[in-house]
Order: sequence, then structure tokens, then C-alpha cells
Amino acid sequence: MSIDDPVALALSGARFAGRYRIRADDEAAALARAREICLEQTVEFPDALIPNAAIREQIVGAPDAPVAADGAWDVTIRYPVEAAGGELTQLVNVLFGNVALQPGVRLMDIDLPESLAAQFAGPRFGIAGLRRLLGVADRPLLCTALKPMGLSSRALAQLAYELACGGIDLIKDDHGLADQPFSPFDERVPRCAEAVARANRETGRRCLYLPNVTASATAVQARARAARESGAGGLLFCPGLTGLDPMRALAADADLGLPILSHPAFVGGLALGPDAGLAPRVLYGQLNRLAGADAAIFPHLGGRFAFSADDCQAIAAGCTDAMDGFSAIFPVPAGGMKLARVRELCDFYGRDCMLLIGGDLHALEPDEDLVQRCRRFVALAAG
Amino acid sequence: MSIDDPVALALSGARFAGRYRIRADDEAAALARAREICLEQTVEFPDALIPNAAIREQIVGAPDAPVAADGAWDVTIRYPVEAAGGELTQLVNVLFGNVALQPGVRLMDIDLPESLAAQFAGPRFGIAGLRRLLGVADRPLLCTALKPMGLSSRALAQLAYELACGGIDLIKDDHGLADQPFSPFDERVPRCAEAVARANRETGRRCLYLPNVTASATAVQARARAARESGAGGLLFCPGLTGLDPMRALAADADLGLPILSHPAFVGGLALGPDAGLAPRVLYGQLNRLAGADAAIFPHLGGRFAFSADDCQAIAAGCTDAMDGFSAIFPVPAGGMKLARVRELCDFYGRDCMLLIGGDLHALEPDEDLVQRCRRFVALAAG
Repeated sequence: MSIDDPVALALSGARFAGRYRIRADDEAAALARAREICLEQTVEFPDALIPNAAIREQIVGAPDAPVAADGAWDVTIRYPVEAAGGELTQLVNVLFGNVALQPGVRLMDIDLPESLAAQFAGPRFGIAGLRRLLGVADRPLLCTALKPMGLSSRALAQLAYELACGGIDLIKDDHGLADQPFSPFDERVPRCAEAVARANRETGRRCLYLPNVTASATAVQARARAARESGAGGLLFCPGLTGLDPMRALAADADLGLPILSHPAFVGGLALGPDAGLAPRVLYGQLNRLAGADAAIFPHLGGRFAFSADDCQAIAAGCTDAMDGFSAIFPVPAGGMKLARVRELCDFYGRDCMLLIGGDLHALEPDEDLVQRCRRFVALAAG
Repeated sequence: MSIDDPVALALSGARFAGRYRIRADDEAAALARAREICLEQTVEFPDALIPNAAIREQIVGAPDAPVAADGAWDVTIRYPVEAAGGELTQLVNVLFGNVALQPGVRLMDIDLPESLAAQFAGPRFGIAGLRRLLGVADRPLLCTALKPMGLSSRALAQLAYELACGGIDLIKDDHGLADQPFSPFDERVPRCAEAVARANRETGRRCLYLPNVTASATAVQARARAARESGAGGLLFCPGLTGLDPMRALAADADLGLPILSHPAFVGGLALGPDAGLAPRVLYGQLNRLAGADAAIFPHLGGRFAFSADDCQAIAAGCTDAMDGFSAIFPVPAGGMKLARVRELCDFYGRDCMLLIGGDLHALEPDEDLVQRCRRFVALAAG
């Protein structure tokens, strides 16, 4: 390289880590691939051309020894905290920006040192905070969605009222309800919030209504404020559509102070496939916690999506395992769940989960109304 | 369902379309799968429970007949424009929000009616505008990146000066340069912009410097303004890290008026795998145009990423094919390209491409300096 740098590089030495599962024939090939990732995710420059030893030693990722794992190799790579520049967008970029485009490499786990973790507030409520808010200590939380798209705000509010009367804990907008002419945000949210408040006055319970504030990043804060002023008890957000960082900003906003339910639309596709993309544990668990979600929706096995039992266990662990001081959050198995599977779900996840049932709550049995069917959902979850 | 809706649904009838490639055993199975997608992407509700005929007829997606394609089936699904609610986030959600989590379905093409396309400004410059800006009419544009991460702002500016003197058209920050302590944004951008301006005064050319404004969505506008005031000639942006909609907002900002180069970090992973996710044509071509990029970086075959010739041709077509009135944009093949491949790249893409070479520009031959090597790049591209 033709350029000498007169400015000395002096980093702290603190490093954050990604563990990558690498498809490779043997340990040496895995290490060679890991060294390519170390370059790709930092300097994106051929090793031989790196202009000085300080950059090679302090900036380029450093791999641990490969460990055989499930027919492939796990390699933990350590990056300088300064490479993340104090920003969530750049932290994600270093962990998985370019490697996301390469087959045969999957991000399995992330680990932040205290100095970096302290830069992110994480979940404001988490499992403990959300349980306090709802006054539900000892069973899975119950969630449903207002739908279908196309109903008027008035009809959605009537639905919300009945669902709250039936004992649902959290009623979210369907993630497809945005600001459409058939139920505009400014009309729908106050009506549904009012309907849930009315039900709460009658039942003495504390059901929360979570409108969908997924929108242009510049519109998210305004919608969240408007939602809060209308009496919403939380927010639904799709980080895959708007971005992970706006969710962080919502969670960090103390004046707002609302719990956040994260929906996997669009970005969930990054966890497809066995040996590329993000491990479900990282995508649905760790990244959501890092970005401040209090609960994370994902597809449970046997629904409309192709997740395995191992995936689902790993997601639940990613939501609840110890992680750099971030609160544990609720895993929210979903995607075509039915009342008939509630006991199975409770057995699978234990009590610290949130059960999300949408369409099946409306598949009424003869002589059953929606309120009664919700009560059956509550009874099943209470065991 | 227990709820009647007293409000009549009266939509315009205008529809936008997604073409999905569906893995299925036969035409009937493909159509059945398409009907599931029609529900999944709109009402997310069992067909039998949809509360009224108006929602079934006006809201739910409508499939065309399946067409055999490449061992699978292509089905075009038409959605009401009102479902997108005038927002890019929700348009993407309807096209591919939940389906992104399902294997065996790939989004191949999108098609917007005039009423919906008119809601998005699209690329401000495109191929024609960027050529005018640079005064380069008749050859591929030449681009490189400032790197490696870890150099000081002073060293990066010196690099920028030499690259501009050598005849490069567009000099972008490496996408890993954000706001790190070794080259903070507010220090790096003015220095590099000044260095390129100085080179332009000496050469009489119009080389553009494109700083990376990928950051928190709320910080993007401020960085872009600061970049412009510092003399930057364009912007680098990673929609996969910050979001697609903030790029749209940058492109739509007439006061800013800078061309945008889109980088595929993170979200590029959605185009991996043969039969799920987004077709490269859609991800790198159509979505970038919809969101206002003037040029789109993607991995060319034979580099560090595993793209095929068909993928690359499809991306170029997605950038330049007629698309609902949006300007054609530059395809930017990259990811480990070398001077030795410039003629091959010119033959592959024709003159309407932008060639991005990073590291290999620094792999100097004996008795060659960086300026000379850039001139060789220019000469190769000029044919």
C-alpha cells in the first residue's frame, strides 16, 4: 500500500465476539475460512496489503481455535469494541454485514463485554417487568391479534373489547394493520385502546392493547407517542421492516415507557436454511434483547412455518439465557397455533412464555361465543 | 366470527402484484400454496373465518393461474393498493413480510400500478443523471472504497486524493467506516471531501466522494446534511442495517439532492438459497429502485461470494429493465473484483454498469504507484 499512516492506533483492547458455525472439511479449512471472516467483517482488505501491524493486530477480528460442532466447526471471532463505533447498526454490520451474503457460515451466538453492553439499554420490562405490569405471576401470558385486515376501526374495537372481556392479557394489532383507509392509525388506536380500557374497568384486569407502530423510521416515534396518549399499553413493532435501531430508540425512550412486542416479518427469512444466515437463537432472541424488545414472536413448529423443535428451544434459550446483563424476555411461539395445542406449548416452553393465538380464537365451537372461547384459552394456559 | 362490520369496504380496485416461484408437485398444489400466500400476506386469517364477502373479495390477494417455471411454478398474486397504506414498510410487508419465513417460496418480481408507483419518487439520478453529474457518457463508471478500517482520517484523505488523481469516478467510504474513534464521521468526511475537491481542481474532473451515512435512522438525515455541507458528492447507504425507508427519505429530499449508492450488508442474506427469500433481481434491483438508490452494489460471480452468472444477469436486468416509470440505475458488481477481470466485466454488463474494485487497486505491481494503477483501471474500462 502506498499510504503510511502517521496517526498511531491505540484501542482499549476490549472485544466483542460472534460464534460462527462454518461448513468446512477439516479444522484447518475451518480456521482458514474464519480468518477470511476476520478480514471480511472489519478491514475488507487482503491480509497482505494491510498497511500496518497496528491495524492487523488491533482492528482485524481474531479467531479462537475451531471446535467441532454438529458436522461443522464453531469458531468464535473477537472484534475490537471500537469497530462498532457505539452504534447498533455498525455492531450488527461487524457481526454479520457481509457474511450474511455467504453460504456456509452461520452466526450462532453473540457476546458483548460490559463496556459495549452498557451502551445499549436493552429491554425496559422483560419477563419480570411485563408480569408486574399485567399482574400475572404464575402462568404463560396470553396474546392475540386484531384482524383481519379490512375490518373498520369500529369493528376492530368491538373485537378488542370482547377479547379483553374474555381474559386475554395482550391484544396486538395484526402486523398487517398500518395506516390503511379502512382502519387509519389515528382512528383505530384510540378506539381500540378505549375498548380495552372499558373492558378492564368491567373485569378489574389490566389487559394491554399494543398498536402496530411499524412505519417509516421518522414516523415511528410520533405514532408511538400518539399511541401512548390514546391509552395504548404497549407497542407492536417489526424491526425487519423499519429497522432494528428504531426499536432500540423506542425501548430507550423513558417518557414513552411502553413494552415492545417484536414481530419477525421480512427479516425472519435470514434464519432460514441450515447453514447460512442467523441462527434462530440470535435473530429472535439475542438481537431482539439487544434492541430492547420485551417479547419476541417467532414461528413454533407444526404451524404454518417450518421450524424444528431444536430451533424453538434455541430461540427460547436466546430469549431467557443469561446475556451480558440484559433482561430475559418472553419467547412468543406463534404462526398458526391452536387452542388444542396450548397444553403442549406450556409443556414445551414452561410458564415463562407468551402464547399467541390468532385465527383459532375465532373458530368457535357450537354454542360458544368469543368471550367464552377466550376464557377457555385462559383456563387451558392456567393448567 | 362473532363480529359484523357495519362499515362498508369500498376500495379502488387497483392492485399491485408479486410474482412468486413456488416449489410444488403439480399445478394444483402450486395454486393451493398460492392461495395460502394470498391469505398469509393480507388477512392472516383462515379463509373459512373471514367475516364478510367484501374482505374476501377486496382485501385478500388474488392469484393468477400457475405457470410452469424452472422445475417449479410461478404464480402472480395481486393485492389491493390500499393494503400498502401508502408506506414503503407496509408495501414490503404485504409483498414478503411473513412469506420470508417460509421455505419453498421466492419473490421473483414486483409490479406496481401507476397510482401506487406515483407515491414513491424513486431514484433521483439513475444512470442518466449520474452520467451527467460525472460528465462520463460512454464507458462504465469506476468506483472504489476508502479502507482499511483503522486508518486515520488524514490517511484516508490522502488515499482519496490519490484515487481521485488517478481518475476514479466515485470514491466511497468502505461500508464499515461509520463513526469510530480512529476516523470519526465529523473529521473524516470534511477531510476526504476536501482531498477529492483538491484533486478535481488539479485534474479538471468531477470525481465524487460518497461518505457512509448508515447509522441510526434518526441520525441519517443529520449525517447526510453534514456530508453535503462538507462537500460530499453522494452518499453510501446500507438499507439492510438502517432500513429501506430511510434510503427512500434520503432520495426524496430535494434540498439534499445527492446520488445514493446502496450496499447489501446484512439484508443480502435474504437472496441466498435457490428457492426461498428474494430473487436477486428483486432485492438488488427492484427494491433499491423503489427506495431511490441510483446504483446498487452486489456480489459478482467468482469473487468472495457465491453468485451465479444467471443471478448477476437478473440483477442487472432488475436495475435497468422498464419498471413502473422508475429510472434505470447502475448495477455495481463487486465483492473481490480485480483489474484482471475488468474487460470480462465490461463484456458481461455492457457499458451501463459501475465497476467497484477495492483491495486489488492496492496490489501494486513493481514500479507502479496507486495513481498509475487507477489510470490502468480507467484505461481498461475505456476499452
